[in-house]
Amino acid sequence: MSFPERVREAVRAARGPVCVGLDPDPGRLPPTEDPLVASLALCHRAVRATRGLAAAYKPNSAFFEAHGGPGFDGLSHVRADIRAPAVSILDAKRGDIGSTARMYAKWAFGRLDYDAITLHPLLGWDSIEPFLEWPDKGVFLLVRTSNPGAKDFQDLEVNGQPLYLAIAERVAAWAEEHDGIGAVCGATWPEELAKVRRALGDDVPILVPGVGAQGGSAREVVRAAGSGPLLINSSRGILYAGDGGEGAMREAAEKLRSECQD
Amino acid sequence: MSFPERVREAVRAARGPVCVGLDPDPGRLPPTEDPLVASLALCHRAVRATRGLAAAYKPNSAFFEAHGGPGFDGLSHVRADIRAPAVSILDAKRGDIGSTARMYAKWAFGRLDYDAITLHPLLGWDSIEPFLEWPDKGVFLLVRTSNPGAKDFQDLEVNGQPLYLAIAERVAAWAEEHDGIGAVCGATWPEELAKVRRALGDDVPILVPGVGAQGGSAREVVRAAGSGPLLINSSRGILYAGDGGEGAMREAAEKLRSECQD
Repeated sequence: MSFPERVREAVRAARGPVCVGLDPDPGRLPPTEDPLVASLALCHRAVRATRGLAAAYKPNSAFFEAHGGPGFDGLSHVRADIRAPAVSILDAKRGDIGSTARMYAKWAFGRLDYDAITLHPLLGWDSIEPFLEWPDKGVFLLVRTSNPGAKDFQDLEVNGQPLYLAIAERVAAWAEEHDGIGAVCGATWPEELAKVRRALGDDVPILVPGVGAQGGSAREVVRAAGSGPLLINSSRGILYAGDGGEGAMREAAEKLRSECQD
Repeated sequence: MSFPERVREAVRAARGPVCVGLDPDPGRLPPTEDPLVASLALCHRAVRATRGLAAAYKPNSAFFEAHGGPGFDGLSHVRADIRAPAVSILDAKRGDIGSTARMYAKWAFGRLDYDAITLHPLLGWDSIEPFLEWPDKGVFLLVRTSNPGAKDFQDLEVNGQPLYLAIAERVAAWAEEHDGIGAVCGATWPEELAKVRRALGDDVPILVPGVGAQGGSAREVVRAAGSGPLLINSSRGILYAGDGGEGAMREAAEKLRSECQD
């Protein structure tokens, strides 16, 4: 199964594009517990609570790395909880020259066995290719991010269009030649997302962060993203829903899924 | 002492801009030893062999992360070997939104206590600011990289100049307002380095990878980088010099230093 088809299949099985972001914030954990144990327990509950209705899970590597080696290895426990057809995405935003990229790929795909990883595109093709040498794995390249600083560089004008669309066009060209390529495009700017989808075509999976706490609307995202493969991530909105119980997590994921269907 | 002054001081003490890159390639380690133990031993020998003549050390995080949690924690052993005034640079090339950047800063500066970290600039100011909240720490922002794929995006034309110069100009503007900002500019293109130095001004430290194995010449780099603070990195050229002994490592670092003085 090709990578775009795999994403579509995960969305079909979950009856919606919900991706559960796993960013266990140490400031929001019970102060009496060991921070790493509490973080891993929170992720475990979130995955269990949303099983069957999430098309993907996306742990944010930084929140595990902040705990040092045991936190870093905790990413494998999170991975073990995620069951196909849901897609496991390691949100690590790496990006380095070829020989170094090979080491990061070995970590993400070899050691941890994630299905996909997020990457910075700035170093170009030889920083991405080593990840695509792993069969059945995927990369999500940052095209337009969801944060305020996105405008600092991503909106710079390149040949009459913003840089992020020039990146999207290049990503689309790579995706025509190679399986396994997706894009990240933030939800806070739905018009930009629509332009990115046009540039990418209907066969490149788009991962959309920034729904919920960061302010984007799921309805607008689904409309803007058109008919191509799509995953919509919510982290804090699910992880810290209601009373923090699994019921509240599941409800929050169901609510997001139903907003996507409206 | 300001960050640029700290880099200048390290270069003065070492009588040259040599930065020793620590990228222990598992394919070049003795096959009979445990790969992580052999990697850490190699780094330990390289730091010891070049002490006093290296202005900085730059472990490449990927080569430690590939060993999982114990490798990740191994970065603290490498750090412990590096003695001031030499600057310790964690080459991790992170880059994420503010709340995530705070986690990476906590890891690099809080847990590991490195003096500086390399970062992707693509997400803009709020992805960088959390690192600058740590007093006496520095960031090196990727402006122009040393790999073939650099041209894919970094050379795109923005307002009549390549993107990397637009990035350099923005980095210079940030550096006027905030201490702790440096830039990475590859050595494989000395003309570009000269342009980057002009854009940055003479007070922003530039870290130059790509000398040696990647093909850049130290002489040309020093000329192109002008009188601003400068670090020139060599990884494989020192780590795998001659017979692999400490004498050969020291000779290779001395040779690089003398090439810089020509």
